[in-house]
Amino acid sequence: MVSRRVERLTSSLIRDVLAAAQRPGMISFAGGLPASETLQLPDFAGVPASVLQYGPSEGEPALRDAVAEQARQMGLRCDASQVLILTGSQQGIDLVAKLMIDPGTPVLLEAPTYLAALQSFHFFGADCLATPLEANGPDLVQFRAQLARRPAFSYLIPTFQNPSGRCYDRAHRDAVAAELDAAQVMLVEDDPYRELVYDPSCDRTPICARLERAPWVYLGTFSKTLAPGLRVGYLIASPELFPLLLRLKQASDLHSNRLGQWLVLRQLEQGDYPGHLARLRALYRDRRDQMHAALSAELGGLAHWQCPPGGLFFWLQLNHEGVDTRTLLPKALERGLAFMPGEPFFPAAPAAASAMRLNFSHSDPASLQRGMALLGQLLRESPAG
Amino acid sequence: MVSRRVERLTSSLIRDVLAAAQRPGMISFAGGLPASETLQLPDFAGVPASVLQYGPSEGEPALRDAVAEQARQMGLRCDASQVLILTGSQQGIDLVAKLMIDPGTPVLLEAPTYLAALQSFHFFGADCLATPLEANGPDLVQFRAQLARRPAFSYLIPTFQNPSGRCYDRAHRDAVAAELDAAQVMLVEDDPYRELVYDPSCDRTPICARLERAPWVYLGTFSKTLAPGLRVGYLIASPELFPLLLRLKQASDLHSNRLGQWLVLRQLEQGDYPGHLARLRALYRDRRDQMHAALSAELGGLAHWQCPPGGLFFWLQLNHEGVDTRTLLPKALERGLAFMPGEPFFPAAPAAASAMRLNFSHSDPASLQRGMALLGQLLRESPAG
Repeated sequence: MVSRRVERLTSSLIRDVLAAAQRPGMISFAGGLPASETLQLPDFAGVPASVLQYGPSEGEPALRDAVAEQARQMGLRCDASQVLILTGSQQGIDLVAKLMIDPGTPVLLEAPTYLAALQSFHFFGADCLATPLEANGPDLVQFRAQLARRPAFSYLIPTFQNPSGRCYDRAHRDAVAAELDAAQVMLVEDDPYRELVYDPSCDRTPICARLERAPWVYLGTFSKTLAPGLRVGYLIASPELFPLLLRLKQASDLHSNRLGQWLVLRQLEQGDYPGHLARLRALYRDRRDQMHAALSAELGGLAHWQCPPGGLFFWLQLNHEGVDTRTLLPKALERGLAFMPGEPFFPAAPAAASAMRLNFSHSDPASLQRGMALLGQLLRESPAG
Repeated sequence: MVSRRVERLTSSLIRDVLAAAQRPGMISFAGGLPASETLQLPDFAGVPASVLQYGPSEGEPALRDAVAEQARQMGLRCDASQVLILTGSQQGIDLVAKLMIDPGTPVLLEAPTYLAALQSFHFFGADCLATPLEANGPDLVQFRAQLARRPAFSYLIPTFQNPSGRCYDRAHRDAVAAELDAAQVMLVEDDPYRELVYDPSCDRTPICARLERAPWVYLGTFSKTLAPGLRVGYLIASPELFPLLLRLKQASDLHSNRLGQWLVLRQLEQGDYPGHLARLRALYRDRRDQMHAALSAELGGLAHWQCPPGGLFFWLQLNHEGVDTRTLLPKALERGLAFMPGEPFFPAAPAAASAMRLNFSHSDPASLQRGMALLGQLLRESPAG
């Protein structure tokens, strides 16, 4: 009765984990939530009544200008006419899927990659081609080989990736851009974490800024820096793609909420945004360092990981590859600890089932310590521990 | 390069009309905007910081409760677990299309019907089956005949329809419900205008409330009563459909903006909502009556229409059926008047190309008079006038 697409709606494992993580007393490393203490109510004085009326599908003109200006500062050649305000950058993934994917359309992804993008592409029927993500970027030999299979686009998260925390180095950014240009394969660059940088030496210039010929869509958001609950994100697209994405946006929800757009713009313009970012980075750097120390203390010898130079996550690889973290999860939940198993982040086999993703932004230091001790215990007790 | 779906993105006539309608000095009967003077800024005191954090995809629990309670009062048997808060009820159309439509899927619609629903269904590849909408509801013989073609669902706007302004009478509501139950065809009932009632004798009980066996999705919104710019709408679905729609919602934009949800809930609970609705109805009834009088004065003998018992629109049928209102439009825009031609509202041939839709909520009385005089002039001058 329902569409063939719906048969591809994937399992609700993630919904179940996140629901369990909400239970009182649970220590959750599962989600990707900002620390609640960083979310400050804006000043509502001066909100104009016009935000209550229908608005343009493109978004508020002043916010589009501000986004374009920020993007130019990070190296993207663009103007405001290429900016589409979104109901969170997740909506950009939905629009790209609608624009590009028919059943069987090949799409090139990192392995592992962002779960909800993977689900959306899969839902529209994509044939997901995977490139292993290594410490400094994708395996370039495999990336080139997958490009030869003519994917409709490549979806990449080069900066502080979810779930791996990795950041492409300059050589990988240059190489990936050159390959995409040579193959003329469209790039969808998802960049929600770029402002959450803790090791400032990272190259964070978007790969979209390096492209000369390939079409591109750059996805950004204010959810990680200002407030996810406002649901304000954006995309910037190469000019030929913009009119199509705009019409898809209009059909999806007419336009994004104007009050949220207005509040974001005010915080960008009047709210000491650079100071806010600096405080956010200091807090999260601290939590990252605490998690790194706790991991070393509690899980040394049981797992290995890279300390992430930015973003919100540690990606943990258990030393014993026979352990599937999906089977560890129910035991962890029983003891009041939630994490994300690694397997659902993989677009295709082989998946690293013995990996897990741990979020460090949302837990206070005491919970973080307690959670790590619990995790260490659990791993030592597990049959393969 | 793009998906086959995108080839079905329909023309931008409507975008062009609405863009032209924004030009300074233009009198616009084209859109469906609330009167700006009815949009009052809410009291922001007491907004909790928690609205800034990520929230549940289902929507805020207290708002879901309030929506379910309203729905039960209008006769729907439902509870809060069946309520999904949306980014405007337009999003409900997108979710239903994703849920139900493969290329070639038959969908049963009124002719004429809501343009943006039509575009969305068409975009997903629906084969649109039309039933003529008559003064008191659909032509029941044709409705039955189309049901025999096994549509995946029927999309209907029984109350103060866009674009026709019509309201199904009780007999048609009963008959349509009985037919859908007998055929076990799902109903998608779009009900944005139900609170904008000017002739209180209308039966407005949802058809979904009459169904015994057929699955259903009821779409509602606060855009016509409180503020479209907040983008808060909802759907209520029969229990078997809810989990699928929820997962589609999550993939579309994670959740709807929480600040808007909170403000809507406060206005429902503390803002003299019944008094607000009474004032809104009085203002719009007045404007409807003014437009009816102006139409009679300026267009008598040139066109015929039904005075709408609710909603936002007059549907005008020119007496000379040889006139295509699409060719009238550029001349009208030149003189500073915008309206919506009738043809794009039809799911299938034959379309009433000599019809047009006129909005009465957004124009002040002086503009309304001047606009009607302009329209009369234009029609008298047209070759077929």
